[in-house]
Amino acid sequence: MKINAGRHNMQDFTYVNKTEIHFGHDRIQSELRPVLERFGKRVLLTYGGGSIKKNGLYDQVKDLLGGFDIFELSGIAPNPKIDSVREGQKIAKAENVDVILAVGGGSVIDASKVIGSAKFYEGDPWDLVINPSLRKEIDQVPVVDILTLAATGTEMNYGSVISNPETNQKLGTYGPKSPAVSFEDPELTYSVSKWQTAAGAIDIMSHLFEQYFDNAANKDVQDGLKEGIMRADIKWADTALQEPENYDARANLMWASTMALNGIVGLGNENGWTVHPIEHEVSAYYDITHGVGLGILTPRWMQYVLSAETAPKFAQYGRNVWHLTGDDDMTVAKAAIQKTYDWIKSLDVPMTLPEVGIDSDEHFQAMAESAVKVGQLDKHAYVSLQPSDVVKIFEASMTTEGFEA
Amino acid sequence: MKINAGRHNMQDFTYVNKTEIHFGHDRIQSELRPVLERFGKRVLLTYGGGSIKKNGLYDQVKDLLGGFDIFELSGIAPNPKIDSVREGQKIAKAENVDVILAVGGGSVIDASKVIGSAKFYEGDPWDLVINPSLRKEIDQVPVVDILTLAATGTEMNYGSVISNPETNQKLGTYGPKSPAVSFEDPELTYSVSKWQTAAGAIDIMSHLFEQYFDNAANKDVQDGLKEGIMRADIKWADTALQEPENYDARANLMWASTMALNGIVGLGNENGWTVHPIEHEVSAYYDITHGVGLGILTPRWMQYVLSAETAPKFAQYGRNVWHLTGDDDMTVAKAAIQKTYDWIKSLDVPMTLPEVGIDSDEHFQAMAESAVKVGQLDKHAYVSLQPSDVVKIFEASMTTEGFEA
Repeated sequence: MKINAGRHNMQDFTYVNKTEIHFGHDRIQSELRPVLERFGKRVLLTYGGGSIKKNGLYDQVKDLLGGFDIFELSGIAPNPKIDSVREGQKIAKAENVDVILAVGGGSVIDASKVIGSAKFYEGDPWDLVINPSLRKEIDQVPVVDILTLAATGTEMNYGSVISNPETNQKLGTYGPKSPAVSFEDPELTYSVSKWQTAAGAIDIMSHLFEQYFDNAANKDVQDGLKEGIMRADIKWADTALQEPENYDARANLMWASTMALNGIVGLGNENGWTVHPIEHEVSAYYDITHGVGLGILTPRWMQYVLSAETAPKFAQYGRNVWHLTGDDDMTVAKAAIQKTYDWIKSLDVPMTLPEVGIDSDEHFQAMAESAVKVGQLDKHAYVSLQPSDVVKIFEASMTTEGFEA
Repeated sequence: MKINAGRHNMQDFTYVNKTEIHFGHDRIQSELRPVLERFGKRVLLTYGGGSIKKNGLYDQVKDLLGGFDIFELSGIAPNPKIDSVREGQKIAKAENVDVILAVGGGSVIDASKVIGSAKFYEGDPWDLVINPSLRKEIDQVPVVDILTLAATGTEMNYGSVISNPETNQKLGTYGPKSPAVSFEDPELTYSVSKWQTAAGAIDIMSHLFEQYFDNAANKDVQDGLKEGIMRADIKWADTALQEPENYDARANLMWASTMALNGIVGLGNENGWTVHPIEHEVSAYYDITHGVGLGILTPRWMQYVLSAETAPKFAQYGRNVWHLTGDDDMTVAKAAIQKTYDWIKSLDVPMTLPEVGIDSDEHFQAMAESAVKVGQLDKHAYVSLQPSDVVKIFEASMTTEGFEA
């Protein structure tokens, strides 16, 4: 186990992000129609399991869109499945839609972005997930979204994560376009459950960790941006759980979700992600909530990769995010990891794999091998991991051993 | 004197920024031609006083652009003058240019953006400065820039500041387009003088202050972003002065300049800027270096507006940026202001107005009145200022009284 490739300068980067954000109270009321009209009249409306019908958003959107030709794809599930994309592809082609209006959280928007490409692809859209470079060669229907969950950052980036239950695969794919326009109304997240609010806050934090613990050194601007978003996420997650209708809490979490993963904070990075590829295996095998899985795995990963070599970065995190003091990096680093564990636990989520129903090591080896392969954890992780290392992280996730209560 | 309009939530905002950033070592060598070809063959090449001829960049650019039709506008001065814009307008119209290639710092890029609009305007381009809304009605020639100074952030925003020596006016104007593509090569700033490096670092810091001290409360994500950029700016400015060819120092300052003023960190803000409008008057009357003027005025402004009401925000700044400890906000706030003064002074720049040649109060009243009028400091500043307040800030800037040596 070693830190990959030493410590380098900020890497060269190219950055552009054309997503237009409309943030604030009920912007859709006056702006949804003119925004959609930029793209056309034939709208594929995508959404999930019906929560938008319960809270009135579905009716509001339908009312606002009188005169548009609306085709619907509903039932897009968490950890969105390739079957939803296939269904969307059929509708998009058959109805020749001009724009996709995605109303929901990460799953709905992720699936919609891939449907946007699939309209212009003749084969099975799973090809576009396995081989994202195919998407560069073809057009992509613009996606307008109304975000209802602060978590994944998909509202302002190029990525999607799609699952294939037949093959136990959960993979990332990237298209040439980020959403054209994203409406972010913090009030639309007032009705998000405590469970999903906590999972979202953990997902945001994990996105920041994945980009923070990186081997390109001295990226202080980007490190500072991430530390600032982390402090805001930590500060407001608890408030959002206690006071679901606190505007400041919901606004900070929503904007944190966007800023954590619109590409900006990871510019100049050298290595790839670690905990997400590992968690994706767990979600693919057991269909658990992504953010909850991250919350279980992250503190164990931190403990496992902590070493004399990584301690200074973990100590920087402790000092700038948790305001820890003290000169000894290893002591501060360990305290920062415990703080991380305590914060996740304070959000009232399961802290071990058995608590989410994973009580045997039956798939550990297969999940570990796949995580290393898909995430290239042996080559491109912050700290190189082999399948045997990932198995140990799974094993450590079976109990609370190693952490203070 | 009062804080304007109480403490409110994060304000609604719309954000989009389509500038494409190419950051890193010598990206122009392989990318400048294909980037310009996107827009056309007729290029208006704009630059300043000839430093790019001394350091070889001019020759490199000309060599790279064989086959393009190049028209040149040189001599764009610091605090760029409307006459340069007028000259650029003539060339842009006469030669029907497709794209402007701005090679330089803030002044060259600022002027080029307004020239981009002036090509499509029949009158005097000073109209476009006085009344920026005229620019929304007309097209704008795309600007590609090669940044040679880390300071203003113009490389990724919509603004320009143009001076009119005849009327002693220095005014901001905004166009509908930010630069199409910005090349940011930290190595191009290796030859920037200590004076300009210091002024640039102070300008970056001031941009962050102008957006940080704001009456919309609980914007913790944005506050955290700014605090992080501040820490990076503070950390690396001194290194850049001592080791002009330190890549990490130049890279952090360059990316800090962009991130401080590409719009992101000020989203959701409620009030306008204060110290910039005041400094613009000083630069308009005395043509001093903008960043140096900001360095003199900023600590006096901070002391002047510090009160029981503003102390908590200054204390937040002290704790998160300077790692100050202690529970009493006023004590921490005062220490943070002294830290700010010390940091600016450590950059080896003048700390009083007499040191930049302003040794009488002759224009204080006129400058104060104009600053309040142009900046609407009585209505929209963080803390409301009348001309008499601004005069007091000028008076305090005559000596080092009130600060520890």
